[in-house]
Amino acid sequence: MFAESTYIRRREELKKAVGSGLLLFLGNDECGCNYADNTYDFRQDSTFLYYFGLPYAGLSAVIDIDNDRQIIFGDELTIDDIVWMGSQPTLLEKAYKAGITDVRPSADLEKYISAATSKCTPVHYLPTYRSEHQLKLLQLLGVKPGAETPSVPFIRAVVNQRNHKTAEEIVEIERACDVTAEMHMTAMRVLRPGMKECEISAALEAVAQAAGCRLSFPTIATVNGQTLHNHYHGNVCRSGQMLLVDAGAETEMGYAGDMSSTICVDRKFTPRQKSIYDIQVASHLAAVEALKPGVPFKEVYELSCRVVCEGLKNLGIMKGNPADAVDAGAHAMFYPCGLGHMMGLDVHDMENLGEVWVGYDGQPKSTQFGRKSLRLARPLEPGFVHTIEPGIYFIPELIDLWRGQKKFTDFINYDEVEKWKDFSGIRNEEDYLITETGARRLGKKIPLTTEEVEALR
Amino acid sequence: MFAESTYIRRREELKKAVGSGLLLFLGNDECGCNYADNTYDFRQDSTFLYYFGLPYAGLSAVIDIDNDRQIIFGDELTIDDIVWMGSQPTLLEKAYKAGITDVRPSADLEKYISAATSKCTPVHYLPTYRSEHQLKLLQLLGVKPGAETPSVPFIRAVVNQRNHKTAEEIVEIERACDVTAEMHMTAMRVLRPGMKECEISAALEAVAQAAGCRLSFPTIATVNGQTLHNHYHGNVCRSGQMLLVDAGAETEMGYAGDMSSTICVDRKFTPRQKSIYDIQVASHLAAVEALKPGVPFKEVYELSCRVVCEGLKNLGIMKGNPADAVDAGAHAMFYPCGLGHMMGLDVHDMENLGEVWVGYDGQPKSTQFGRKSLRLARPLEPGFVHTIEPGIYFIPELIDLWRGQKKFTDFINYDEVEKWKDFSGIRNEEDYLITETGARRLGKKIPLTTEEVEALR
Repeated sequence: MFAESTYIRRREELKKAVGSGLLLFLGNDECGCNYADNTYDFRQDSTFLYYFGLPYAGLSAVIDIDNDRQIIFGDELTIDDIVWMGSQPTLLEKAYKAGITDVRPSADLEKYISAATSKCTPVHYLPTYRSEHQLKLLQLLGVKPGAETPSVPFIRAVVNQRNHKTAEEIVEIERACDVTAEMHMTAMRVLRPGMKECEISAALEAVAQAAGCRLSFPTIATVNGQTLHNHYHGNVCRSGQMLLVDAGAETEMGYAGDMSSTICVDRKFTPRQKSIYDIQVASHLAAVEALKPGVPFKEVYELSCRVVCEGLKNLGIMKGNPADAVDAGAHAMFYPCGLGHMMGLDVHDMENLGEVWVGYDGQPKSTQFGRKSLRLARPLEPGFVHTIEPGIYFIPELIDLWRGQKKFTDFINYDEVEKWKDFSGIRNEEDYLITETGARRLGKKIPLTTEEVEALR
Repeated sequence: MFAESTYIRRREELKKAVGSGLLLFLGNDECGCNYADNTYDFRQDSTFLYYFGLPYAGLSAVIDIDNDRQIIFGDELTIDDIVWMGSQPTLLEKAYKAGITDVRPSADLEKYISAATSKCTPVHYLPTYRSEHQLKLLQLLGVKPGAETPSVPFIRAVVNQRNHKTAEEIVEIERACDVTAEMHMTAMRVLRPGMKECEISAALEAVAQAAGCRLSFPTIATVNGQTLHNHYHGNVCRSGQMLLVDAGAETEMGYAGDMSSTICVDRKFTPRQKSIYDIQVASHLAAVEALKPGVPFKEVYELSCRVVCEGLKNLGIMKGNPADAVDAGAHAMFYPCGLGHMMGLDVHDMENLGEVWVGYDGQPKSTQFGRKSLRLARPLEPGFVHTIEPGIYFIPELIDLWRGQKKFTDFINYDEVEKWKDFSGIRNEEDYLITETGARRLGKKIPLTTEEVEALR
């Protein structure tokens, strides 16, 4: 945890931003994997962590702005708990560390909320992402599951605070990024033809774990890099293939790192692989070069798309004017995802609060295939932390679908594309902090160019 | 998956056992860790796996006994799903592999259930262990969360089938046990003074992962072995300490292994460590020796407790008649848990269906501290698979509590116990199959005695 002053300050700012009413924070509970007591690794809700810091299951909190009260609701351990789980400080002792002195039993939350609602005090809550949250809102407020109405003022206030990382947060994020970099370099060192994908993911996840970190998201380590979120790890890595790794560490305090690399299974990339890889790097570097406060990230994305289209045009895969191709959405055949996303206490920071608030500041998102997957578009501000991860993918199912639909025949040379259908995909990803004057890469540098990757193989 | 005939046979047996009505199977959904799309590693519900085999999120099923219908409810993938997650067989193709030919959209389940209830057909369902199950029962049957009434005939029929492992299940379980054994032997090989607990857990978990397995439960790897379910991995392993490891692998089909070992951080155990360790081994071996069909596991537990009490009496820690001490429950100061539990598709097999059915065949459980934690008590039958894991723990909080209460002063020599308060705890654990004539250890043998452990250090 940070010093208690951090949490006190965050809550004071939040109170000012929302102004009135009661703010309800639902911490996470344990979640049984295949029965109640075989739980998944507990993860506290990130907004709860941000304002209250306590990484324990079974807690809720309120900030009662009108009555100037800040309360954590939860239950103390029993002797049975201590036998099975060991001695722990009391909940009150834990709460002190977040600057909270008012701790009450869980059962009192319902009474507190109903006293507030009986006085017509508005109860602000955030969007739910677990069934347990829906059950709690049903119990506390009578909200029917699926009919939640999260508070926009609450969301906007939280997003505005969490989007601007402080110096102490950057230290934590950079620690996550350093471990993340070590995970990727380990993968580059150990990969050999004939190994299974799961052997690589085992090796890189062990790096995170031995450093006292957890994973910030499920590891991608696949020879089928064209599948964007491929969590199957059962393939053998064969000579001539590339392994796409997207993986990150999360520190004990909950801050995430997130990087990707594409590694040749052999010691060197083939010329064919290098021809696509170099386009990805050019797009990546052009995007990084463009980062500075005031620049809409949407423009950086458009730039990265144009660089991809130009490169693919040089290879005869695309044709026509690259800028027109990007405007039309033809690039999305090969680059169907965004350029990057905010990163912090969540790897896709605050995704549960709504991308439209976090990455668009409430402005509408495109509905166009590809462009709609851009998670961040707003003008950049100092303190923003986000990824840069353009990619080039040859997705056979999408190629067949669009070819059949005769889509973008002005921009896509389908006969040429057929020759690349078995190429798989390439993505490299780094993490950046927007500074007052530009941007700074976070964490140790991982190999980016083919030469840099080959040097580690 | 097994051959489709396995699932067909299992469902036929279940239909006969329950006899009539509609059996509702709620498969598991994805569970968001810190936002909806950052999911925990998906795990299908074990009973769903047992009867339908399909390890995919978002499925439900019914066996409509009266109308002789077996239906899987779920939705097909979209092109967006395929871009992000890769091409997959259709749901119908998947269902064929479990011998199911009737596949319907998720949305049809509610209609199907309400048609059944409108004809007063009883809808049998199993106990819930996730909030999502409670939400579904609310939606499908109007059952208020917390007011579920699971079907006892359904539970008993499932338990009776799943408790008796078939030859093909034993092969899977033994594969899990082999990987589990390798995890423990890896820990024994790599542990050195000065390493952190998380470095050991990282190394042994990588063994499971590289073998294509997941963990059957969260790893325990702790120098504070007196805490029974200690998942903190942040301590340094120091000379003079022991590391208690309780960890297991789960195969891709979902079958679990579960073993424990207690490893000296130095190359050899100290005489003081060995004096307690040898008692644990004696208790362990006495229990294994007693395993055969017809013997109530409760008696095996009582035997293991007596051996512990005799050993502790020899060291002056306990006094009086060991059998009387066990009857009174005094042994639970040092041995507050059970001797073992059923193991199969869950590491604590069917814990969500109720220990009283799985391990007690409906007979009442003791409420005595220690004895109440015995998960298995019923007479053993061929096909049962369970663990053997007696333990000896010195739990400072419990010692202080009972000493203050002057509990069992006829059996516990508190002045002597004080000298052992910092000892921590010892547990060794193996997995056994009850055969027609006795019992067989499953999986590769891991070191059990101090000499065997020292040989690997």
